[in-house]
Amino acid sequence: MFSFECDYHEGAHPRILQRLIDINLEQLPGYGEDEYNARAKDRIREACGTPEADVFFFGGGTQTNVTVIDSLLETYEGVVSAETGHVNCHEAGGVEFTGHKVLTVPNRDGKVAPEDLQALLDTFWGDEAWEHIVFPGMLYISHPTELGTLYTKAELQALAEICHKYDMPLFLDGARLGYGLMADGTDVTLRDIAEITDVFYIGGTKVGALCGEAVVFPRGNAPKHFFTIMKQRGAVFAKGRVPAIQFDVLFEDGLYFELGQNGIDKAKKIKKVFTDRGFKPYSDSPTNQQFFILEDEFADKLREQVFFETSKRLDESHIVARFCASWCTTDEMVDKLAEIIDSLM
Amino acid sequence: MFSFECDYHEGAHPRILQRLIDINLEQLPGYGEDEYNARAKDRIREACGTPEADVFFFGGGTQTNVTVIDSLLETYEGVVSAETGHVNCHEAGGVEFTGHKVLTVPNRDGKVAPEDLQALLDTFWGDEAWEHIVFPGMLYISHPTELGTLYTKAELQALAEICHKYDMPLFLDGARLGYGLMADGTDVTLRDIAEITDVFYIGGTKVGALCGEAVVFPRGNAPKHFFTIMKQRGAVFAKGRVPAIQFDVLFEDGLYFELGQNGIDKAKKIKKVFTDRGFKPYSDSPTNQQFFILEDEFADKLREQVFFETSKRLDESHIVARFCASWCTTDEMVDKLAEIIDSLM
Amino acid sequence: MFSFECDYHEGAHPRILQRLIDINLEQLPGYGEDEYNARAKDRIREACGTPEADVFFFGGGTQTNVTVIDSLLETYEGVVSAETGHVNCHEAGGVEFTGHKVLTVPNRDGKVAPEDLQALLDTFWGDEAWEHIVFPGMLYISHPTELGTLYTKAELQALAEICHKYDMPLFLDGARLGYGLMADGTDVTLRDIAEITDVFYIGGTKVGALCGEAVVFPRGNAPKHFFTIMKQRGAVFAKGRVPAIQFDVLFEDGLYFELGQNGIDKAKKIKKVFTDRGFKPYSDSPTNQQFFILEDEFADKLREQVFFETSKRLDESHIVARFCASWCTTDEMVDKLAEIIDSLM
Amino acid sequence: MFSFECDYHEGAHPRILQRLIDINLEQLPGYGEDEYNARAKDRIREACGTPEADVFFFGGGTQTNVTVIDSLLETYEGVVSAETGHVNCHEAGGVEFTGHKVLTVPNRDGKVAPEDLQALLDTFWGDEAWEHIVFPGMLYISHPTELGTLYTKAELQALAEICHKYDMPLFLDGARLGYGLMADGTDVTLRDIAEITDVFYIGGTKVGALCGEAVVFPRGNAPKHFFTIMKQRGAVFAKGRVPAIQFDVLFEDGLYFELGQNGIDKAKKIKKVFTDRGFKPYSDSPTNQQFFILEDEFADKLREQVFFETSKRLDESHIVARFCASWCTTDEMVDKLAEIIDSLM
Repeated sequence: MFSFECDYHEGAHPRILQRLIDINLEQLPGYGEDEYNARAKDRIREACGTPEADVFFFGGGTQTNVTVIDSLLETYEGVVSAETGHVNCHEAGGVEFTGHKVLTVPNRDGKVAPEDLQALLDTFWGDEAWEHIVFPGMLYISHPTELGTLYTKAELQALAEICHKYDMPLFLDGARLGYGLMADGTDVTLRDIAEITDVFYIGGTKVGALCGEAVVFPRGNAPKHFFTIMKQRGAVFAKGRVPAIQFDVLFEDGLYFELGQNGIDKAKKIKKVFTDRGFKPYSDSPTNQQFFILEDEFADKLREQVFFETSKRLDESHIVARFCASWCTTDEMVDKLAEIIDSLM
Repeated sequence: MFSFECDYHEGAHPRILQRLIDINLEQLPGYGEDEYNARAKDRIREACGTPEADVFFFGGGTQTNVTVIDSLLETYEGVVSAETGHVNCHEAGGVEFTGHKVLTVPNRDGKVAPEDLQALLDTFWGDEAWEHIVFPGMLYISHPTELGTLYTKAELQALAEICHKYDMPLFLDGARLGYGLMADGTDVTLRDIAEITDVFYIGGTKVGALCGEAVVFPRGNAPKHFFTIMKQRGAVFAKGRVPAIQFDVLFEDGLYFELGQNGIDKAKKIKKVFTDRGFKPYSDSPTNQQFFILEDEFADKLREQVFFETSKRLDESHIVARFCASWCTTDEMVDKLAEIIDSLM
Repeated sequence: MFSFECDYHEGAHPRILQRLIDINLEQLPGYGEDEYNARAKDRIREACGTPEADVFFFGGGTQTNVTVIDSLLETYEGVVSAETGHVNCHEAGGVEFTGHKVLTVPNRDGKVAPEDLQALLDTFWGDEAWEHIVFPGMLYISHPTELGTLYTKAELQALAEICHKYDMPLFLDGARLGYGLMADGTDVTLRDIAEITDVFYIGGTKVGALCGEAVVFPRGNAPKHFFTIMKQRGAVFAKGRVPAIQFDVLFEDGLYFELGQNGIDKAKKIKKVFTDRGFKPYSDSPTNQQFFILEDEFADKLREQVFFETSKRLDESHIVARFCASWCTTDEMVDKLAEIIDSLM
Repeated sequence: MFSFECDYHEGAHPRILQRLIDINLEQLPGYGEDEYNARAKDRIREACGTPEADVFFFGGGTQTNVTVIDSLLETYEGVVSAETGHVNCHEAGGVEFTGHKVLTVPNRDGKVAPEDLQALLDTFWGDEAWEHIVFPGMLYISHPTELGTLYTKAELQALAEICHKYDMPLFLDGARLGYGLMADGTDVTLRDIAEITDVFYIGGTKVGALCGEAVVFPRGNAPKHFFTIMKQRGAVFAKGRVPAIQFDVLFEDGLYFELGQNGIDKAKKIKKVFTDRGFKPYSDSPTNQQFFILEDEFADKLREQVFFETSKRLDESHIVARFCASWCTTDEMVDKLAEIIDSLM
């Protein structure tokens, strides 16, 4: 298999696996009550500049999104998301399974625009029948978005301002946060996110971990008994070491940021491969997901030699194809991709 | 209060109240096991031409929609609806509360177009990631729609054909069915609906009952133990006579259809009042809800003397106003409305 | 049908039906925004001595219990109930459908004993693994209980004291409250209940209404947006007059209490019929439900002439039979019951 | 930390970690579509003697139990369990969160007795009001049970016979199955379980894996679209290799059974340590969990040097203490435990 289809094709950074081996037979308390959990959480608090933060480890993104969203909403509230948001599209109705509607706003290159959020709120609160309608209860955004795009700090602040005026928590899905933080030109740091949002998660699965996402409530503002809420959803690891060791290693010596940087560097190289050969990018993604417009015929031939994702059909003879770089993509892999493309032109 | 705001401002047809009095001290078994339930259900079966039908009585529309939809969907399925559908807009997230997503298609004058349904299905089944997406599990339509419009028999058949090809039940919300059946020019009868759909309900609340909706599974195709499902949602009347007597009277001697006809006649008269005076209809509704475009200034003055609903804001200086006729609207009421309008012009 | 099977075999008190007729064609705003709702709620506030109370009308008991319980619990909490509690036994899992466990304590003649509640709390909070266990989040009691028994004021206060120490709301299901309040020897008044509990409901269906239960949050302590929560569960009447008129009449001139008194008087007469003839009561119920131990053979013969409920099998040759008096039971009915029994002895 | 508190204090068998390293940079499709998943599932099918089985990998026990149970129940059904069952006690209401009641029968040394199951079914189906009651929809048992006990093959068959008569699936929770299969005197093999039950899971977390449970529907009888159901609950690993490699190794060359045998051997040694010194076992557990009655004073002193779980308080001066052996318990650990005990006597 030779693939740029996604950023979770390989295992984990070798230092993570080695650390699991190093402590393998240490007896540790279950359910995250161990010292490695404590240390990993401290490292995340340190990186975020939020000594008071509550930190929890989940196994995967859908579980994280659904649990955080349900725990923050009242029964009569829904979560606002871009129509392209992961919670709206690719979680098999996980949010609805917990009883809540996803209220959508148009996607602007994958992002929620402050004016669209405000318009949704104006429509709701201005409706004579508002008490018969799902209340907008929180905002979900992803950074990077599903289209690889990034918010600016000003955009995040504008969204947060609206949210807080309406008493709505702002939740940032950082499944690919490592790549977002290291993108060229971004003015958003991890500390900015911790300061601006009410809850966010730092994605491990797509940035060098086997599995694991770290949810951060930056001001110690986790819902009461969040552990039990996690347990009820089956989201607690009996062997708490599994996610903890991974984040302990990722946030030791800045490995998480290094891995993010590798994804960015290789994505830029991929972009150059395509644009040098005249392919048109579909979006101007500064992160590890790169989208290009391919003719069907070419796409079919390319697919015989390399895996990539068909994002969507653009028109009768073109698709939008996604190529992902990741924490472990190598220069050799991108060179091979270039060779394959050249051989087909 | 002088109002055309909705079709549930008054009580019930006097014959219904009289019948409740007539049998008041008869001892009847609880939970619908009585003879009046049996008779009312038989009358509905007769009117629908479906001797095998399962019939159940609910107290109100939201409860009906939510219970029927949840009982027909698998946990991984959602219900397809026009974006203007009642279940999507005005039931406070009742469907989502039971764990299911509402999958929307564009509204075409309040209706679901077969080609839009087909497009949604094509998109779903054509998506590489379909197993990560909510399955389209059934179709919800309303007839008349929330905009007062009606399906033709051919349109209903086209929708049913697609539904059955994909093994999706077709559910018709008939909250205002009485008005739909008696509208000028419609080619859809109650028997057509019973033949074409998989489940529908005959609305009582808006057509002469105090409360009550009759759900019909025309081919005896109710989900197993539907009574217990109703009980679990708190939808069973201990005194089963309450809804039963109402439908018993409504389907005795064709009263339901007479009441529907009155709503249609008065709606046509309302329409004439407005159009004669140069007001523009917003939609071409053949049923008891009439929508007109009003200037803000005029609307404000009119609102001082008569209640009506603001459907939505059209532009900076105009709204869409809804005027409802009902089973008990009188000629005098419409004449008075005309006088008020004249006095303001 | 000649029946003492339950207290919801007949319709409604004639004054209620008459009032529905009197105002039948008055146009009233929908969803409870009308003057009769306002007046009925004021009358209930007055009767309870709680001018600040929030009052809401539901259509039936299961819907009421489930909605109140779910609205007061956090997602990780369950409701404590006697094992014989209606919510645990006869609501088809309505509470569980909303996501919450019913945590049971032994029934003591249908009642929750303070020491059993305390024991459950001690066990929970003393368990090493408490964070993995459903939290006891509120207490549900019924008064009268499912066995016809009543709490004393001191017992209610003792339960309330424990509840409040643990920050658990105390919810009293008053489906048959009218009978409980008028029982001989009770020291519990409606005002006591309003003072001691956090939420309770005044049952209409079993005390003279067609349908309807009035939920009272005595200190204006309803959950935020409780109307929308009701709407989401399909518990709002479009024609708000339906429950309102019933409670308006029931709480005008003390009718509710009169109807309760009739149930008590006739229940005492039923009790005398049985005990005079040597039948053993199963419980010492001071309210409208009377339980007697009947031999199978006798029960079978009796059942041919009068309906009654088999509460449970006691042993191989005896059952516990329930005979209910109600708001409209007459002396003649009880006399006839006595005659039938005599004819079988 | 020196502990016999549970069987998930250590990491994973070294061969598992080594295999993760060996294939670390192989690019594999996501979500379990890889060759290692295929191979691991085949090995499990082979071990179970069920070539048609559907096999799915979960991350942990609560998630597994809740997802399997909800996917097999109708909305009006609950799951029958011993009152001591894990799903009833220690999953924070996970089953109820999905809308279902846990219907309890008495525990007989942690087991469900066929006669108790039959009695519950008789009570339900014999109740006049059965349609108002949660239906018994499936049976949940654990093997070994929460008290370390085991079913005999005849007991399993007797339960299955009742279940199938009532059309209820039989689900066996095998969180500690490895220990159960290797216990002295058991006549139940993995193939028996696959033949007798309708669904079961093979626990990895407590038998040598980092995390992971393998659900087996032995006759290819998984609910439709079970993958999407898992996805909706957040139970799908993006990197499907994580659970697959673990089961691939565990079911290669019989490692799973070897690890189970080690737990049994060390448990027997622990039992001897206690009984030789006059301590009374609380139950006659043939598996890796051993329960002893300890005086409070002794327990407190012992607890200063070794971790163990307090199962429950037995009386005013005694507790029941649990000591677990596991796949990696050594003779040296048990010897050290014996020394500590001797030093305190």
